Amino acid sequence: MNQKGGNSVQQNPYELGLDRNPANHVALSPISFLERVARVHPARTSIIHGERADNWQTTARRCRQLASALAGLGVGWGDTVAAMLPNVPAMIELHFAVPMLGAVLNALNTRLDAEAIAFMLAHGEAKVIFVDPEYAATIAAAIQRLPNPPRVIDVADPLFGAAPPLGTLEYEDLLAVGDAAFTYRAPRDEWDAIALNYTSGTTGNPKGVVTHHRGAYLNSVSNVLDWGLPQHVVYLWTLPMFHCNGWCFPWAIALQAGTHVCLRKVDPELIYQLIRRHRITHLCGAPIVYSMLIHAPKSCREGIDWPLEGLMAGAAPPIAILAGCEEARIRITHVYGLTETYGPASVCEKKLDWEALPLEQRAQLNGRQGVAYHLQQDLQVLDPQTLQPVPADGESIGELFFRGNIVMKGYLKNPQATQEAFAGGWFHTGDLGVMYPDGYVKIKDRSKDVIISGGENISSLEVEDLLYKHPAVLTAAVVARPDKKWGEVPVAFIELKPGATASESEIVAWCRERLAGFKVPKAVFFAPIPKTSTGKLQKFVLRQQMKSTDAIE
Amino acid sequence: MNQKGGNSVQQNPYELGLDRNPANHVALSPISFLERVARVHPARTSIIHGERADNWQTTARRCRQLASALAGLGVGWGDTVAAMLPNVPAMIELHFAVPMLGAVLNALNTRLDAEAIAFMLAHGEAKVIFVDPEYAATIAAAIQRLPNPPRVIDVADPLFGAAPPLGTLEYEDLLAVGDAAFTYRAPRDEWDAIALNYTSGTTGNPKGVVTHHRGAYLNSVSNVLDWGLPQHVVYLWTLPMFHCNGWCFPWAIALQAGTHVCLRKVDPELIYQLIRRHRITHLCGAPIVYSMLIHAPKSCREGIDWPLEGLMAGAAPPIAILAGCEEARIRITHVYGLTETYGPASVCEKKLDWEALPLEQRAQLNGRQGVAYHLQQDLQVLDPQTLQPVPADGESIGELFFRGNIVMKGYLKNPQATQEAFAGGWFHTGDLGVMYPDGYVKIKDRSKDVIISGGENISSLEVEDLLYKHPAVLTAAVVARPDKKWGEVPVAFIELKPGATASESEIVAWCRERLAGFKVPKAVFFAPIPKTSTGKLQKFVLRQQMKSTDAIE
Repeated sequence: MNQKGGNSVQQNPYELGLDRNPANHVALSPISFLERVARVHPARTSIIHGERADNWQTTARRCRQLASALAGLGVGWGDTVAAMLPNVPAMIELHFAVPMLGAVLNALNTRLDAEAIAFMLAHGEAKVIFVDPEYAATIAAAIQRLPNPPRVIDVADPLFGAAPPLGTLEYEDLLAVGDAAFTYRAPRDEWDAIALNYTSGTTGNPKGVVTHHRGAYLNSVSNVLDWGLPQHVVYLWTLPMFHCNGWCFPWAIALQAGTHVCLRKVDPELIYQLIRRHRITHLCGAPIVYSMLIHAPKSCREGIDWPLEGLMAGAAPPIAILAGCEEARIRITHVYGLTETYGPASVCEKKLDWEALPLEQRAQLNGRQGVAYHLQQDLQVLDPQTLQPVPADGESIGELFFRGNIVMKGYLKNPQATQEAFAGGWFHTGDLGVMYPDGYVKIKDRSKDVIISGGENISSLEVEDLLYKHPAVLTAAVVARPDKKWGEVPVAFIELKPGATASESEIVAWCRERLAGFKVPKAVFFAPIPKTSTGKLQKFVLRQQMKSTDAIE
Repeated sequence: MNQKGGNSVQQNPYELGLDRNPANHVALSPISFLERVARVHPARTSIIHGERADNWQTTARRCRQLASALAGLGVGWGDTVAAMLPNVPAMIELHFAVPMLGAVLNALNTRLDAEAIAFMLAHGEAKVIFVDPEYAATIAAAIQRLPNPPRVIDVADPLFGAAPPLGTLEYEDLLAVGDAAFTYRAPRDEWDAIALNYTSGTTGNPKGVVTHHRGAYLNSVSNVLDWGLPQHVVYLWTLPMFHCNGWCFPWAIALQAGTHVCLRKVDPELIYQLIRRHRITHLCGAPIVYSMLIHAPKSCREGIDWPLEGLMAGAAPPIAILAGCEEARIRITHVYGLTETYGPASVCEKKLDWEALPLEQRAQLNGRQGVAYHLQQDLQVLDPQTLQPVPADGESIGELFFRGNIVMKGYLKNPQATQEAFAGGWFHTGDLGVMYPDGYVKIKDRSKDVIISGGENISSLEVEDLLYKHPAVLTAAVVARPDKKWGEVPVAFIELKPGATASESEIVAWCRERLAGFKVPKAVFFAPIPKTSTGKLQKFVLRQQMKSTDAIE
């Protein structure tokens, strides 16, 4: 910095007696969005769920009550609170109440099985878990495996119907003992953890991504900037809130004094009903969500004469989906990110002159992962060895790297993975791609063998590990097969042990007993697996094979 | 926080090995907005000035060149760079180039006289000053008074015309020696100073308000949120950039990939020409700017068939101006703040149900100072003694206090004023007002005796000090008189020394020789000044008198 001039710290007059103090420095936290909307727009509708409609004053009171009641259960700074919930009001309230205590929200993927959940509850040391009746059986099975199970709070839901409680305390009864005037302290530091989200990486055990107040605040704001989210937006929860905290939208909607419309399940007919009834304009999801919407019967869309805005991530939008969305008046904004970046942290920011281009070209341009979010510092394609940029020619392959304030603190209790993720001062996404001359990035391949099915990550290694446990299996490789509905589905290649026999249905059954349904291979091929001279499996050959299969179909 | 549960720092698993690093923590700085827009929208128009139109790629290059050239002049971290410029392209470029070096931009009020400027240059220790030819004489007079005058850079402007240079180096020649590929470092800390703005307070000597990168970043973003500033906005510079860094709009326009349209002087005819030619939609200013616009001949507005958005601060918008703006299709958003809060830090956020109310009621509601900006933490009306909130009844008077990240570091070299400003953990605005039941604030009076004339602050004490120096003056009190054009103008009340004589024109001439024109009393009354039993002048009585005078007129 000091090329010629400049001051030392001692000399610099701007450093003298001008320190941070409570008047001029406050920890950035998305809790502040709730306080503001409750003060400025107390009577506006905050959350709609079935026939229930709360306003922001009510929501703020309920969140303080919930925080107070959780404090009464002994939850405090650095404690983990888990949630196994669909997109119901309690899930939104937890996004504010848990951070009010300096505690950490661990939203669990409701599609996971008891074993995976048990691992997360143990690893994250959850003290309390909020459970929807739909997942009571899974949680019951999970906590049986734990020496120190968390306290269970049942979250009843009239839209699910009556169900026997799993624990001894129901959500509304817990709230009832809380104090609506509870005063909590701001986070002592904006670097304090706010959420814990488990990601299925390439290893068998999921990694616990720890995010912080500062990042959640900035990503919420950036969602507004990058999507042009309007004040008083009416937002439909087609995206699971357990996915990277619903891409920070539980907080962003409060920031814009909008309305959350809850949704337990992605059902196109119900979605269109809600859109019509509540005049919804914005929603998020993987391509499959939009695929369902555009393939719903046209009658579903009757009376909806306003355009929808859709944020799409999880995979590049196929041209058929983009075309279908245009026809259905859903304006797609393509974003990209990872659990480690709070969900989307880059956007394929549209240019006005793209609008005049033919659909195919537009789809190609919009199919890119684009540029860093407004409040993310940088997205680059670098040589993973040298960390130098690859040529911006749309052809030279490198790895995608993020840098900025919308990047996690690191992985919980996993210093090695944390160090690897941040080596060289960049966050390593593990995704391979190219940089175009216009500064936009596109993913070309994945350096990890993750399969993305319906927006869910599947670790191929996890499935392979299980296959290897089958007595007849010698070698196993699991790769993605392109799929019109799910984007990708896992398929398995198996070499049997000499003399051993196994059928496809036997292998599938073996997996089904031990894995969540979406992770089970959709096809099993018994064939030699190509290997390198050192014996390493050449999974890219299999992937290639699967792609051409699809092309022939 | 630790009501019952919670962890110590040693126990908290979320504190272990999850520190800040260059991949996940970057100092917030508005410089990043320039980098992003130059990458994403390089070909979009950045700055228009007369017939000149630059694009963002050019602007980014020029800013780096300027930073590089300034570094060559010895400017570095903690050095002050002054600017005596109207709203020209160089002023925008300085807002990025100076912070790139960790240096501090001191934009000077072009309406001030040489003595005031000399004080600021000396106090701020400016190393370099950029000078527009219109103010060359003032600066020449100012630097004559300085033992260590700053290096002068002349900023020529074809729209001003040819003028003899004051120094030996012209802006474009300076740029020419700079390196467009200059790599600067991000600020070492987001708390680093970014700007120095002198405010005329109640004491004779102005105070140097020091702002920081974090606040400039967050206020820029909050401008977008609070005004709904759209992407690619075309913005007209009716607000002087030397006023609190143009309320952070030099940065906010870059954030939204917009276009700056420069303006040397508020001239309604020219403004409408530029609005028509460049399809301008947004502008800022004090009420007088809007007053000029609505009183311009109707022919000026021909061909402008789109609505304008106007951000207004400096005084509550009078009903006549609000009505006139509605008629002229200028949609006003009323904001409030101080130099200490980077310009506006509160907004009278509109409610949808106000729209149906009659104009007078709407004007009353919109005339309030409102609520804290989205990214400012809080605005309250407190008892200045106890710092407890006054009842939210719209009647109980207290002082307005801000708290949050859009508050200055403090006053340069003035620890006492800094401590007083932040006493009790709130920023003391010095403005008195009330809190309404809906959480909105309204200013009722000023605890300081500042007079606001055409958006400029005048310290009554400064004028009084000067009057007291006149040989015939015994007692002097300067107060505001309401004025249709300027909002307020200063008027003086004088008690002469026994046996002494002086005429109004003599007193005015005395002031005119020694003060900037706008500070000179517009009327002088020779009359006894009401005093308290302890001899304190009761200026509020005089103010009241001036208000009724106006009402009678």
